[in-house]
Amino acid sequence: MNFASDTTAPAHPAVMTAIAAANDGAAASYGADAWSETAAEALCSLFESELAVTFVSSGTAANALALSILCPPDGAILCHENAHINRDERGAPEFYTHGGKVMPLAGAHDLITELALQKFLGSMDRDFVHETPADVLSLSQLSEAGTAYDLDAIKTLCDQAHRAGLCCHMDGARFANALVESGASAAQMTWKAGIDVLSFGFTKNGAMGAETIILFGDHAKRFNALEARRKRGGHMPPKQRYVAAQVLAMLDGGLWVELAGNANAAATALAEGFVRAGGTLEHPVQGNEVFVRFNDGQNEAMRRAGAQFYGWPDGSARFVTSWNTTEADVKSILATIL
Amino acid sequence: MNFASDTTAPAHPAVMTAIAAANDGAAASYGADAWSETAAEALCSLFESELAVTFVSSGTAANALALSILCPPDGAILCHENAHINRDERGAPEFYTHGGKVMPLAGAHDLITELALQKFLGSMDRDFVHETPADVLSLSQLSEAGTAYDLDAIKTLCDQAHRAGLCCHMDGARFANALVESGASAAQMTWKAGIDVLSFGFTKNGAMGAETIILFGDHAKRFNALEARRKRGGHMPPKQRYVAAQVLAMLDGGLWVELAGNANAAATALAEGFVRAGGTLEHPVQGNEVFVRFNDGQNEAMRRAGAQFYGWPDGSARFVTSWNTTEADVKSILATIL
Amino acid sequence: MNFASDTTAPAHPAVMTAIAAANDGAAASYGADAWSETAAEALCSLFESELAVTFVSSGTAANALALSILCPPDGAILCHENAHINRDERGAPEFYTHGGKVMPLAGAHDLITELALQKFLGSMDRDFVHETPADVLSLSQLSEAGTAYDLDAIKTLCDQAHRAGLCCHMDGARFANALVESGASAAQMTWKAGIDVLSFGFTKNGAMGAETIILFGDHAKRFNALEARRKRGGHMPPKQRYVAAQVLAMLDGGLWVELAGNANAAATALAEGFVRAGGTLEHPVQGNEVFVRFNDGQNEAMRRAGAQFYGWPDGSARFVTSWNTTEADVKSILATIL
Amino acid sequence: MNFASDTTAPAHPAVMTAIAAANDGAAASYGADAWSETAAEALCSLFESELAVTFVSSGTAANALALSILCPPDGAILCHENAHINRDERGAPEFYTHGGKVMPLAGAHDLITELALQKFLGSMDRDFVHETPADVLSLSQLSEAGTAYDLDAIKTLCDQAHRAGLCCHMDGARFANALVESGASAAQMTWKAGIDVLSFGFTKNGAMGAETIILFGDHAKRFNALEARRKRGGHMPPKQRYVAAQVLAMLDGGLWVELAGNANAAATALAEGFVRAGGTLEHPVQGNEVFVRFNDGQNEAMRRAGAQFYGWPDGSARFVTSWNTTEADVKSILATIL
Repeated sequence: MNFASDTTAPAHPAVMTAIAAANDGAAASYGADAWSETAAEALCSLFESELAVTFVSSGTAANALALSILCPPDGAILCHENAHINRDERGAPEFYTHGGKVMPLAGAHDLITELALQKFLGSMDRDFVHETPADVLSLSQLSEAGTAYDLDAIKTLCDQAHRAGLCCHMDGARFANALVESGASAAQMTWKAGIDVLSFGFTKNGAMGAETIILFGDHAKRFNALEARRKRGGHMPPKQRYVAAQVLAMLDGGLWVELAGNANAAATALAEGFVRAGGTLEHPVQGNEVFVRFNDGQNEAMRRAGAQFYGWPDGSARFVTSWNTTEADVKSILATIL
Repeated sequence: MNFASDTTAPAHPAVMTAIAAANDGAAASYGADAWSETAAEALCSLFESELAVTFVSSGTAANALALSILCPPDGAILCHENAHINRDERGAPEFYTHGGKVMPLAGAHDLITELALQKFLGSMDRDFVHETPADVLSLSQLSEAGTAYDLDAIKTLCDQAHRAGLCCHMDGARFANALVESGASAAQMTWKAGIDVLSFGFTKNGAMGAETIILFGDHAKRFNALEARRKRGGHMPPKQRYVAAQVLAMLDGGLWVELAGNANAAATALAEGFVRAGGTLEHPVQGNEVFVRFNDGQNEAMRRAGAQFYGWPDGSARFVTSWNTTEADVKSILATIL
Repeated sequence: MNFASDTTAPAHPAVMTAIAAANDGAAASYGADAWSETAAEALCSLFESELAVTFVSSGTAANALALSILCPPDGAILCHENAHINRDERGAPEFYTHGGKVMPLAGAHDLITELALQKFLGSMDRDFVHETPADVLSLSQLSEAGTAYDLDAIKTLCDQAHRAGLCCHMDGARFANALVESGASAAQMTWKAGIDVLSFGFTKNGAMGAETIILFGDHAKRFNALEARRKRGGHMPPKQRYVAAQVLAMLDGGLWVELAGNANAAATALAEGFVRAGGTLEHPVQGNEVFVRFNDGQNEAMRRAGAQFYGWPDGSARFVTSWNTTEADVKSILATIL
Repeated sequence: MNFASDTTAPAHPAVMTAIAAANDGAAASYGADAWSETAAEALCSLFESELAVTFVSSGTAANALALSILCPPDGAILCHENAHINRDERGAPEFYTHGGKVMPLAGAHDLITELALQKFLGSMDRDFVHETPADVLSLSQLSEAGTAYDLDAIKTLCDQAHRAGLCCHMDGARFANALVESGASAAQMTWKAGIDVLSFGFTKNGAMGAETIILFGDHAKRFNALEARRKRGGHMPPKQRYVAAQVLAMLDGGLWVELAGNANAAATALAEGFVRAGGTLEHPVQGNEVFVRFNDGQNEAMRRAGAQFYGWPDGSARFVTSWNTTEADVKSILATIL
């Protein structure tokens, strides 16, 4: 009954098998291996587009490196005030951009509203040297509240941003969970909706440690700059084949969709049970996270039974399901409060 | 016949087994897992000392993070002019120190001489605000020429540095190879000789991707600062158990020593064969690297037979042996020129 | 009728005389001159305390350098969301701190409230490596709304901050105006109330270009670090005597207090006239700035008559008086709308 | 008899007069004043070209800001190993470029040789991600040895650099002294010879504190980026008119040439006297600096007579003449040893 985070889950067996299979003889180092090349091709196919891709081993690295090629040191990144890049990465975007500002926008359920963005952009004067203009809009999919932007929202926000001269980044640490929920294709949720650069994560969804940075369209021309920063940041692994092999295993046969589907279904079941037990959902469940408010007795009952989950600063509780959460896990925890 | 680099070698089977074994159920994320704790204890035992340790997945990250807690933005790092941190990390130390200077010192066979260090320190005035004073001495073990500092040299250089107010860092990407060659203990080659912080690498020696940063003695008090920078740099993996498990496998039963011993023995055999074939060694062989000057015909003959190795800018050639280099590999390549 | 900003005013004649007098023969460069020493002594006397002081030529430099010795790259600075350091310095604090976060707090009239600070500090966990903890509280005196913290507010906020392990900085670009208004002594408004480091500006108050950074109490031990950063930032002028001479002229005979008094009196007269003319004051007038909301006709009438002032984003207008604003200036502009 | 540095000299009376004249009424702040505009025009006229120009108050700021728009964080700047930007600015270029590397080249009399540059560029591989490529060549005019590049040398070096994709910067802290010596025009010594960006200093030559950054040709398009960094660095003075007025005074009637001529003539007279007294010149005298080796008795004799000059690390002594050095000054010091 571990609902603390999807990062506490192990790797999927297929990922382990792929890593073991990659452990065969010599391979070119620093990304010049066959696995990296094949994984890049598989991503082109998935996104129905030419693209440039690179591999890193943490979501923080993926976000910070992606943002660093879009935002100059004297520029700014717009994101929701509760975004992971603003609150939970110990200033990684500021570090990788060399002091770019992360500017928080408001919005219910941790989703930036059209209005909040409009207000900010409307008062921005790129030619006024004293103020820091925004260069990037970053959308989190899932948000920190477990919610997802729908396609229309992404399109509208990206369109607003582009018109004001910004680039659009998506923090897709839980991209799979958002995609499965929406039924959209990977292309529809990204470049077709206006996303320029995507941090596409596999670690939370069943990999051991594999994240990708994807540059769409013309942004592929920033690839060399990205690689230089990746090297400089210490994120160009000598034996990259083991990272790329994980991505290949996740993409193979749509495993990544299947695993996210399982996690999301478990979250939905959990949420339904929580409501039946008298809990109040804080946010819509649109992926694999449930934020719920119980009475103290219920929280205590679940913990006493061995359930792991996080108490949230606002008094609610967060439950995260994983690729390997079972129906039995859901039933077990619900049994403690139903 | 792949002598291009020890980073082209696969991981040792025991490492793969350990990773697979670690893939069992939920585990606390971001380094709060049991493997990380046990690996830290194993390192304390190996170094016969209390110490603070953290784990990263590339040698560049290990060096840059280690240096970043020793050198302020307006300080400097002394290293050999050919050191990896100066030439091959795309400015990672400058990035992680926020613009600290990497100041090159000279010395034959890529080893800093006592005299070169003395000359620099003698003319340094820490109170002269216009000049950048040095804060760190960084020694590479092995050096970029495949050579190693002996214990006396380490002691002498560290002592000079400490007297001038510097801290001492060792880039131990090939620490195992240097240690095996010297016959010294891990403690003797590091803190007992004056090293304050060590980047201790396992990737080149048989791991999949596992490096450690070790803080000796009082420097353990810098651990929180190191962890903050590790997080900020994107080097705190969500599922750290898989990195720590590699370290444990390498330390278990002295595997790391055995593997480095194999690589070194292969390098020695290679060097002896090269000399018999008329090659001239550019540097003493003190680890798993051989730098040799052949005539063009010989280089050509080896390449034609499928051998992989790097031509060096000075016209010589570099051959790196690995934990899995076999006697047969050595014989095969020598057969092409003997 | 120039009410655009106090930075549009010329320098006071006494400042010009002092500069001319300093232009006499050779003097040691980079701050080792007699003027710098004497100005430092004069500031010790003014603040009734030993202190360390350095000189720069812009307020942005004074703030950013001051903050850079208090906030590490992975730390944060708390300030009002409208603070100059957050909105009007093109990210200078982020630059000089190497990516420290500037975290905005709310409060009416651009003054941080005790509650807002308490809420932030209450939820801060300095040991949670993923989040950026705050290291500095920065108070602006005057605020961007022309308001001032009273002594009690400063004491309360500094006390809260100190208890949570933060240092306290005051952006005193208009320190003189705030001081005159309050009737407090320089010592009372700063170190006696808990301020650790002060940016004390003279430029807006009648100097040509002279700002100081003052380190109180134990913080004087950070002086060498400050000087290194000042040099590195290009803010150690070769001929510093001309900056120090300005400070001396401003302090001599309390000129700085007299000039701020004049500016404040003009602002008060202006505000009273504006209210008589039907304008609505947006903020209390507690220095030399008046924020007022008029009808369009009135704004137009003033502009047509040649008055210069800034329209504010919220639809109000900002009028700044200066050391040389005369009663006639005030009467002239009021005549256009009364 | 102050030969310590040209930064110990006062400002020329014409500069003081111009500052006083500029102190007249209100003027737009932050560079939007008439003096700044007129000074920019005067510089266009001097350099016989359209150009973009900005004003700062220290040479370190001029160099570091100029370099920051030419060199990305993961790039490098080539300069002579003794260059001011490498040795005497406490890492300002590394700070402003966010960790760019300053890479030292060798050459007698502190002048980079064609061969040294060729060797570096010949081994540079911009596509090899692990190494830091050079983006800027920086030439110092005068060098730290008081020597100057002649027009042919500048052309050759710039041509080499451009062919390898670098931009060319000139540190012209003593540009006037070099120009007077060469008899070339300002245009000939800069953009016509291949210089892209110039730090053109007036402070050492008679200003109070006034340096300019000049962007030639297409590089003028980097002006907005430069201004943003200038603001961010705290180098956009609120009352910029006083800096621009100094530049105007120096340019007016060729005062800057006259003053540099005086300083150079004094240096030449000094050098001739030193040689007559048995001293050995360390470097050719090509500006206002004389490096000479005396016996200890002579150094002592001069100091005893009150002469101020710097002992150099190599055992020689440096004498710097200024715009206001008189024949009498030269005679006085020579009298002590002749």
